[in-house]
Amino acid sequence: MRAFASDNYAPAHPEVLAALTAANDGHATAYGNDPLTERAREVIRRHVGAPDADVHLVFNGTGANVVGLSVFLEPWETVICAESAHINVDEGGAPERLLGVKLQTLPTPDGKLRPEQVAAAVIRRGDVHYAQPRVVSISQSTEWGTLYTPDELRALAEVVHAHDMLLHMDGARIANAAVALGCAIADLTAAVGVDVLSFGGTKNGALGAEAVVLLAPGQGRRLAHLVKSSAQLSSKMRYAAAQFVAMFDGDLWVRNASNANAMAARLAAGLRTIDGIALVQEPGVNALFVRMPRHIIRPLQDEFHFYDWIEADAVVRLVTSWDTTAEDVDAFLAAVRARVAG
Amino acid sequence: MRAFASDNYAPAHPEVLAALTAANDGHATAYGNDPLTERAREVIRRHVGAPDADVHLVFNGTGANVVGLSVFLEPWETVICAESAHINVDEGGAPERLLGVKLQTLPTPDGKLRPEQVAAAVIRRGDVHYAQPRVVSISQSTEWGTLYTPDELRALAEVVHAHDMLLHMDGARIANAAVALGCAIADLTAAVGVDVLSFGGTKNGALGAEAVVLLAPGQGRRLAHLVKSSAQLSSKMRYAAAQFVAMFDGDLWVRNASNANAMAARLAAGLRTIDGIALVQEPGVNALFVRMPRHIIRPLQDEFHFYDWIEADAVVRLVTSWDTTAEDVDAFLAAVRARVAG
Amino acid sequence: MRAFASDNYAPAHPEVLAALTAANDGHATAYGNDPLTERAREVIRRHVGAPDADVHLVFNGTGANVVGLSVFLEPWETVICAESAHINVDEGGAPERLLGVKLQTLPTPDGKLRPEQVAAAVIRRGDVHYAQPRVVSISQSTEWGTLYTPDELRALAEVVHAHDMLLHMDGARIANAAVALGCAIADLTAAVGVDVLSFGGTKNGALGAEAVVLLAPGQGRRLAHLVKSSAQLSSKMRYAAAQFVAMFDGDLWVRNASNANAMAARLAAGLRTIDGIALVQEPGVNALFVRMPRHIIRPLQDEFHFYDWIEADAVVRLVTSWDTTAEDVDAFLAAVRARVAG
Amino acid sequence: MRAFASDNYAPAHPEVLAALTAANDGHATAYGNDPLTERAREVIRRHVGAPDADVHLVFNGTGANVVGLSVFLEPWETVICAESAHINVDEGGAPERLLGVKLQTLPTPDGKLRPEQVAAAVIRRGDVHYAQPRVVSISQSTEWGTLYTPDELRALAEVVHAHDMLLHMDGARIANAAVALGCAIADLTAAVGVDVLSFGGTKNGALGAEAVVLLAPGQGRRLAHLVKSSAQLSSKMRYAAAQFVAMFDGDLWVRNASNANAMAARLAAGLRTIDGIALVQEPGVNALFVRMPRHIIRPLQDEFHFYDWIEADAVVRLVTSWDTTAEDVDAFLAAVRARVAG
Repeated sequence: MRAFASDNYAPAHPEVLAALTAANDGHATAYGNDPLTERAREVIRRHVGAPDADVHLVFNGTGANVVGLSVFLEPWETVICAESAHINVDEGGAPERLLGVKLQTLPTPDGKLRPEQVAAAVIRRGDVHYAQPRVVSISQSTEWGTLYTPDELRALAEVVHAHDMLLHMDGARIANAAVALGCAIADLTAAVGVDVLSFGGTKNGALGAEAVVLLAPGQGRRLAHLVKSSAQLSSKMRYAAAQFVAMFDGDLWVRNASNANAMAARLAAGLRTIDGIALVQEPGVNALFVRMPRHIIRPLQDEFHFYDWIEADAVVRLVTSWDTTAEDVDAFLAAVRARVAG
Repeated sequence: MRAFASDNYAPAHPEVLAALTAANDGHATAYGNDPLTERAREVIRRHVGAPDADVHLVFNGTGANVVGLSVFLEPWETVICAESAHINVDEGGAPERLLGVKLQTLPTPDGKLRPEQVAAAVIRRGDVHYAQPRVVSISQSTEWGTLYTPDELRALAEVVHAHDMLLHMDGARIANAAVALGCAIADLTAAVGVDVLSFGGTKNGALGAEAVVLLAPGQGRRLAHLVKSSAQLSSKMRYAAAQFVAMFDGDLWVRNASNANAMAARLAAGLRTIDGIALVQEPGVNALFVRMPRHIIRPLQDEFHFYDWIEADAVVRLVTSWDTTAEDVDAFLAAVRARVAG
Repeated sequence: MRAFASDNYAPAHPEVLAALTAANDGHATAYGNDPLTERAREVIRRHVGAPDADVHLVFNGTGANVVGLSVFLEPWETVICAESAHINVDEGGAPERLLGVKLQTLPTPDGKLRPEQVAAAVIRRGDVHYAQPRVVSISQSTEWGTLYTPDELRALAEVVHAHDMLLHMDGARIANAAVALGCAIADLTAAVGVDVLSFGGTKNGALGAEAVVLLAPGQGRRLAHLVKSSAQLSSKMRYAAAQFVAMFDGDLWVRNASNANAMAARLAAGLRTIDGIALVQEPGVNALFVRMPRHIIRPLQDEFHFYDWIEADAVVRLVTSWDTTAEDVDAFLAAVRARVAG
Repeated sequence: MRAFASDNYAPAHPEVLAALTAANDGHATAYGNDPLTERAREVIRRHVGAPDADVHLVFNGTGANVVGLSVFLEPWETVICAESAHINVDEGGAPERLLGVKLQTLPTPDGKLRPEQVAAAVIRRGDVHYAQPRVVSISQSTEWGTLYTPDELRALAEVVHAHDMLLHMDGARIANAAVALGCAIADLTAAVGVDVLSFGGTKNGALGAEAVVLLAPGQGRRLAHLVKSSAQLSSKMRYAAAQFVAMFDGDLWVRNASNANAMAARLAAGLRTIDGIALVQEPGVNALFVRMPRHIIRPLQDEFHFYDWIEADAVVRLVTSWDTTAEDVDAFLAAVRARVAG
């Protein structure tokens, strides 16, 4: 199967498998008290630019988001996020179920919260009748494949902090974002005022490697208890750690994200040349949102797996990944051209 | 103090106090297993037009809403409601905290959900990644003082049921609504397809009398366990029951709501004659939403307690109650006129 | 009906009703921001001997326990309590449901936790795999009708605090306890190191009057938000406040508890003279636990409502209340004698 | 490091790594909709002897326990388990936090619930004041390294079902149990009346492979939503599936468990020959509980990592695993002998 459905459809990079195999040697202390996990934590701290950050590896992106948010939320507080946020529309209600708090959603054209709309949403401070905004959660890159620039992040963080709130970043595709913006991950996190990051590796070539990163120190004990009581504590954690080291100690994360982004660009360029095909967002990373003639969608999906995004609007999502090849893209483009000409 | 702040500022009607005193005689089985509570249940069943309804008295409106909703919700399901719904903006996060589910809010100009927007919100059925709409919650009257007609309720219930959902009605002001519409409470509930009702008495002249009503039978055991495990089971329940009987066995509820509604109408008529004052909603019951010159709001509030509603827009809320007098209204109107003339 | 089932079967004292009626005058700010509620808070602070205590009136005992505990608990922490604690066996799972934490129960012969068993239960400190004890909850009087002396309370509080925990007291019958011990309520709370108290009035002659009292200041905002988000915030709170003032500003609480305790003593004295009847606990307040010949229990319950306590052991509970008369007691004793003589 | 601390310290079996590498080929549908996951489900159904079982792979044992239990529990219900149960003492409060229900713990000498004590714990049926037992959870093998025979399981299941409850089995070491008892896994699950199983592979040689198995069909949709909303849904699930197939399609699970059990037996036999060393449980699988002279414990732990179990009693836990060698055991025995001889 060659799919444009999700970067989760892609396998792991062979170097990641090799690292797993290398880690599979002898006994290691369980639950993250092993040297390889400590090394993974150091690698992550280096990338986010926060040498004292508390870092905990967890199982998946939903787990990272829920645990990271839980560190800071009281039961009467809320999380402000975009309507399109993964935590709002793609986590099956896990945030409300596990956190017991409201997600206060704001409409956006492109998945990006603006400082002024966040400021306007902070009302009735201290009023017990009104659930109190406490965390603003953004995704970098967003669920619409768009990007916050470092300046936009800084401006947002300023407003967030000025209102006595914290900034959470869902970084399921933080690698794609940093590569697209040509900057370090730290430039998108510690440097701009992110307080808690869901640091993702799975979509960029790991088997399953996600972490919660608290950029300011002091909440490490809380984090550890919350990871465990959220059922997100891996016993043989060395295997998650091995993936992080393989991905992020060298440049594998850059190679993988660069390919995914480049293939999306190639796909976008090709689609723009086809009559009747429209990109509904300017693509920033490895996801395209495309309006197609409705009658060609289902036949194309039979050839290449991909998802409807807004079914009522005939908008589909196309995602490239670290292993997408130019041949994959060109075959897809040829199929689209044939169907449109059809 | 004479206030237009909330019908919760008003005292209880003297007949309610008299009923409490009358009930205060001898021993009675605790936790609702007493004859007076059974009589209150019968009175409520008669009013909603559902002879087999499961009815449980609870402490307050938030309790009624949360318990009523909890009967039907799985942890991965959601409640669709208006952005302005009391459960969304005035219950301090209790629904999310106690139910662990998402409130999926829809924008409205007047607090009223439309069938077509509800239908459009039901997407991705069966998709585990997407929290699944299960209950639609409306308020009658709404938080904007507006009303659903019986036909509008019927149309909404049809859409709700056609999408395999249930219709919850927050009836904190159901008496005001029925009186304003000139119909029975049953015409707004059983007759139009409401599945679960928060039946309110407090705002219309009780001390504290709220009930959860499940119009279709079969969930009585669930309801009883949920009331208890939500900390909403009164030990000396006869006193809540006495209030319901006093309010609803005769016509006290009509007399009280009629006065509140009439005084709101008198207030609205007077305000319409004052330059610079605008009603931002056509009033249906006993609440007015009024835009005023900003500089007169605070001085007026010093004389007559009332709340800002949309501070950014200089919109305030004025609520009348069962004990509001024509003199109260006229004094307020005179004060507004004087301030505007300034 | 004349019952020995529960102090919840008794009506309210007429002075309480009179206070309600007196409070039913004019408008008052809702949600506890009224002068009568402030006065109730002052009365409570005076009784517990903590002038800066944060006090919030709530609806019922379960609500008071759950809200009071919630102020201090993280999701990975536990509450140590006796197996027989009301929170463990009579709140329908509300504590676990609403707090999401473990009740770590310890066996006792009489409902009283001992310092040494509490100390022994505090193990694996800091171990994320083990839910961490944080609050020790006791009942005064206990569910077995027994009492902690002030010295016993002090010794317990010392162990609790030495282990970095807090002491919660379920004071549903705190009035009966203080009267039985001949001391002030402060001698059982602030003076001995209680941190959070559920202060009960309902069982001692109110309609429904319970409060959460945080004896050390500093958690008032948390408490307010938790009350609201637990659906325990009364809108017309003046009526709960009026009850507290009526009960506790003067000596009504002493008169009521004294009668209940005296009638229990009279009942106990009488029962001790009857062959085949055994008190299984030395009674401290207004509850007796009595083993009876099994065949007389049901017929007696048909005459006088009371509850089985340990059905397998033919142990029943008899509770007297503020309105129990010597005639009630003597009639019951006569009936027991007649049944035993059979 | 050569440890007797936990089977979680052991690496994965090389055949498991080889299976992962083999699975790492091309695109696969995410979230378990891939052929390898379907094959893993089939393998598991075959082992438990329930061809229509609903099976879902999850991340870890705590996740499997919590999700499996959540399928059947209402908020007012409880789980009966042994005091020593992993869900009670080693999951950091996750069950109470994520399920919001009480664990009703029963004391046992050996981690095994007896039918009669379960029956005695089911009281006050239908009483809303009392949280209602709904699931009985046992561990096979237990946390004390002991085993239920198939006859014991059948007797327990009969009592459980006779009281309208369900039987949950924490099978984190189900492979060790089946091998020790010389029977099929089905003989311990479907054949004896287990309703829901946490099927473990991690401790027996996988990297991280756990599953929830609902033996009776009909709750598959619920299970799927609960997995997702519990943050236990793996995106690239093929890698968990590959582990299950590697472990359980052939006889790897038997080879691994046989070695672990045999090494524990060798260790037990050796320890029995040393004066001053006592096994406090008759070992059934791969865990030994051993009382040692207190002064040798810490020095031994410096050489061979293992855990204190009951620190106050100088009882430690020794666990063997699939990769423990006779040399490991003999080296440990020699060290113990040397320390005892002192």
